[in-house]
Amino acid sequence: MNRKEALEIVKEQLNEARYTHTVGVMETAIKLAEKYGEDVKKAELAAIFHDYAKFRPKDEMKEIIIEQNMSKDLLEHHHSLWHAPVGAYLVQKEVGIEDEAVLRAIEYHTYGRPNMTMLEKIVYVADYIEPGRSFPGVEEVRQSAENSLDEALFLCLRNTIVFLIGRKQPIYPMTINTYNSLVQ
Amino acid sequence: MNRKEALEIVKEQLNEARYTHTVGVMETAIKLAEKYGEDVKKAELAAIFHDYAKFRPKDEMKEIIIEQNMSKDLLEHHHSLWHAPVGAYLVQKEVGIEDEAVLRAIEYHTYGRPNMTMLEKIVYVADYIEPGRSFPGVEEVRQSAENSLDEALFLCLRNTIVFLIGRKQPIYPMTINTYNSLVQ
Repeated sequence: MNRKEALEIVKEQLNEARYTHTVGVMETAIKLAEKYGEDVKKAELAAIFHDYAKFRPKDEMKEIIIEQNMSKDLLEHHHSLWHAPVGAYLVQKEVGIEDEAVLRAIEYHTYGRPNMTMLEKIVYVADYIEPGRSFPGVEEVRQSAENSLDEALFLCLRNTIVFLIGRKQPIYPMTINTYNSLVQ
Repeated sequence: MNRKEALEIVKEQLNEARYTHTVGVMETAIKLAEKYGEDVKKAELAAIFHDYAKFRPKDEMKEIIIEQNMSKDLLEHHHSLWHAPVGAYLVQKEVGIEDEAVLRAIEYHTYGRPNMTMLEKIVYVADYIEPGRSFPGVEEVRQSAENSLDEALFLCLRNTIVFLIGRKQPIYPMTINTYNSLVQ
């Protein structure tokens, strides 16, 4: 599947703002893959499809999480987390992508996991720093990504945890596992 | 066991600074118990013995954690966490305290747990705000403890997590479970 075909498929699933974000993530992921020596086509594909399930109905995602025996604690946390693992499942089922590395980069793009692969790190960081993002602290992460993917990933996790705490929002345990794996 | 006897026992286990801290925690826990209607004698006893194992050798604590089948992830985290569950065990074994509520308040005084009892909250908060503590943010927690034990507990957890992240230190998963139970 080439870039044009992939973008056409994902465009059907997203609104305009989310599609623009997706193109930004794709471009950023390609640059990071070139910089850090990762497979550029895999980074492109994972980035294009990372938000594939973003606008699926909550009930459909919930059903997939239960039927596919995904981590049960997902359902105890905010549904904004669900589109990542559900997306990995649907991209395989509906789009026919079978590359495990690409699917896992989609699955872990919101909360990571300990010992992430380079492809997973690239999609995670690209999602955070793509040119359309403008939240506080993003420029520091962009600068950091020029020098160290791990340092940029740490900053993404740090900012996310501090942001959630500032809003008295729950923190998904896997987010902490990912953070711990980066500082231990 | 009266207060004098309990303080004499614990004094043998601590250095002067830690003993002074313990007396501060005891006085604070008593005040909080009076304010929030908890058993004052239990709060006094748990506070006196909360740091009983603080100066036990690392190897001894490690052995107890393994032998007593305590949570395995303790050993993957900093040994400064170990004195709390190990203390609960030793206070029962060596001092003969059998009150489960008191023992659990000692066990959970560093990382808490979801749905803490009032006694557990009192010891946790008292340990954080006793008069000898002077770190940034402690005054806000003291003020908060005048009005709401849960809000004070939340602030303790929030400050602890943000402090650890600022120092790139790992966060014990139970600390996040405790935090999540307070905001969910």
